[in-house]
Amino acid sequence: MESMAPSRFVTPGELADALGALRASSPLVQCLTNTVVTNFTANVLLAVGGSPAMVDVPGEAGDFAAVAASLLVNLGTPNTEQAAAMREAVTGAGAASTPWVLDPVAIGSLRVRTALARELAAAGPSVIRGNASEILALAGVSGGGRGVESTDSVAAAADAARELARSSGAVVAVSGEADLVTDGVRIVYVHGGSALLTRITGGGCALGAVCAAFLSTGPDPLVATVAAHAFYSAAAERAAEHAAGPGTFAPLFLDALAAISPAELRAAAVLS
Amino acid sequence: MESMAPSRFVTPGELADALGALRASSPLVQCLTNTVVTNFTANVLLAVGGSPAMVDVPGEAGDFAAVAASLLVNLGTPNTEQAAAMREAVTGAGAASTPWVLDPVAIGSLRVRTALARELAAAGPSVIRGNASEILALAGVSGGGRGVESTDSVAAAADAARELARSSGAVVAVSGEADLVTDGVRIVYVHGGSALLTRITGGGCALGAVCAAFLSTGPDPLVATVAAHAFYSAAAERAAEHAAGPGTFAPLFLDALAAISPAELRAAAVLS
Amino acid sequence: MESMAPSRFVTPGELADALGALRASSPLVQCLTNTVVTNFTANVLLAVGGSPAMVDVPGEAGDFAAVAASLLVNLGTPNTEQAAAMREAVTGAGAASTPWVLDPVAIGSLRVRTALARELAAAGPSVIRGNASEILALAGVSGGGRGVESTDSVAAAADAARELARSSGAVVAVSGEADLVTDGVRIVYVHGGSALLTRITGGGCALGAVCAAFLSTGPDPLVATVAAHAFYSAAAERAAEHAAGPGTFAPLFLDALAAISPAELRAAAVLS
Repeated sequence: MESMAPSRFVTPGELADALGALRASSPLVQCLTNTVVTNFTANVLLAVGGSPAMVDVPGEAGDFAAVAASLLVNLGTPNTEQAAAMREAVTGAGAASTPWVLDPVAIGSLRVRTALARELAAAGPSVIRGNASEILALAGVSGGGRGVESTDSVAAAADAARELARSSGAVVAVSGEADLVTDGVRIVYVHGGSALLTRITGGGCALGAVCAAFLSTGPDPLVATVAAHAFYSAAAERAAEHAAGPGTFAPLFLDALAAISPAELRAAAVLS
Repeated sequence: MESMAPSRFVTPGELADALGALRASSPLVQCLTNTVVTNFTANVLLAVGGSPAMVDVPGEAGDFAAVAASLLVNLGTPNTEQAAAMREAVTGAGAASTPWVLDPVAIGSLRVRTALARELAAAGPSVIRGNASEILALAGVSGGGRGVESTDSVAAAADAARELARSSGAVVAVSGEADLVTDGVRIVYVHGGSALLTRITGGGCALGAVCAAFLSTGPDPLVATVAAHAFYSAAAERAAEHAAGPGTFAPLFLDALAAISPAELRAAAVLS
Repeated sequence: MESMAPSRFVTPGELADALGALRASSPLVQCLTNTVVTNFTANVLLAVGGSPAMVDVPGEAGDFAAVAASLLVNLGTPNTEQAAAMREAVTGAGAASTPWVLDPVAIGSLRVRTALARELAAAGPSVIRGNASEILALAGVSGGGRGVESTDSVAAAADAARELARSSGAVVAVSGEADLVTDGVRIVYVHGGSALLTRITGGGCALGAVCAAFLSTGPDPLVATVAAHAFYSAAAERAAEHAAGPGTFAPLFLDALAAISPAELRAAAVLS
């Protein structure tokens, strides 16, 4: 990471304000996501204070994206009909200026999702979120990871993330031991979290939905994305204190997402 | 609500008998439900004492509806193939007199499911279950809620529920702080429950499956539907006593559904 | 069961070695499974020490099966597109000698999955896993169970399992109070476990994924399948000690899967 000095770009107070705004507005977050994590993602959004709506069929997805507060498009299990709904949703979001997050799960060598990710990345997402291998693959630098796992470090993806942010116009977030968030100019690292998040399925996917929820809270997608990551890390740390393994971690993590106050987030966040 | 006097229409003893009958028969409940809540719904049915079967593909759904004890059709994520299976299932249920529940999730402005809900409501469900906004939308009174959330109160939907019950021939149940159940003539309110049920995804959807399970226990769908709601509320209350948040609430709720005896239900139910 | 004398065919030391090898290699396990249990299956695989990848769309499933360590094909909700992906995956696995598990969920009278199960069983699975009714139905002996439930005992399916193993060339595993595993010549019974596993959805389905994970650890699919069942039973027993019902059992089961060491498995396994 670049430095452990506090971030020049985002302050803990801004994170607290973003969480307060999210809780006050209960944003309607539309999710087109994979079949593995729909339940967990909806529960994470409810715990955070959002209102999830998994509207992912053609004929509905586009109309709904125009009224939703924000949108998540996650490519984990992109069957034909859901892929069509994703195109509708992205078009609807674009027309209505609904901010949206693209999560290019496991792209690289897998053909359907890799082509779809390139197409959607060109459609103007506000945020692109993934692990290092996914970001490297979307930036065209490497061939992707091992299934949904990253085989690259966040540091190795830093240059590609910055480039991808510049070329796409999106904020790019790379998850890892420390998370990197950049808009191509500013770079913020979010520290903390828990390795248990990588031992439950959907840890990364649901973070994409939380990014979408925070996108509705203010005008700067970099601040929103950093707030989502810092909040998620703080909740994971709190849950890990009392978890006896990945099974008991998951419900405690949801409890922590529901319990952490803006003031607690301000105190817990470690940015550089 | 109309009154806090004990219901003239359903007694606590009838609820206890229904639960006893459910546990004794372990009814085979077929579910065509949305991808977000399939897992939770199946676990709820198992906890209650039923036997869930998520048979939702064309070529199977109709045959199975003829042998199932009851059926749930939930419109949360109605892709093309599942919608075709729903039509098959409803036809099979009709031919075999299998009782079934329609849950018109988030209808109103969403086109695919709203048209499908109207079509299915005309096919003779035994029970229609939803939140106030969904019932108002199905009755043609309003345009629906905010995604899966109700923006209307149960009281505001009471007249529409009674009308819908009369026109459709179904028992209509409206979930809210107190739940309303009506067959167009009788009205019963079920009190209690916990707000935590609204903080986990599938709280309402799984209740539809529980209604289906109870439908197999006796000839009066009003009694069965009231029993399902009262049992669900009692379990939610018990779980909420020890939950530290929505994450720990969910497993405790399943435990409570499995643990509550007919006698405990008789003592806990508050009807008016 | 044949006898309570220790198995002549598999030793507790071999089980421990298999678990050690699984943890050391973190095998990439591709799953094409039903919508009800995808989340739980992925969490079980992560807890065990594997790396789940739910790659189940046409155009990707076949390519991925060639690089995965092993593959699960589960017929619980076989929609058209997933069925096409299953055929691709099985072809890809065959070409690359990737070992794979077939789980013929609820076959018998259900037409789509029964035909598909027969087709896939002829494509060379390494392991076929099911309950007694499913194995009897696949062997052509009976018409299947009651939905996903077995209506037959393991003992009643023993001959059919042995026959099916011989005719298919697969190891056949039958889940029940004691689990039977056979390659047509050797028969091993795995004792222990907990009835709570039958009170949560996906208990059997996720076991199929664990079988796939163990298949990557050694050359003998009988040993791998016995190891998977013995490990699963040991974890269920440990979880049941502290569970207050099916809801709290599930997270404790995941914790136990993550915690049990090879030495603990060696001590806990009861084979005959």
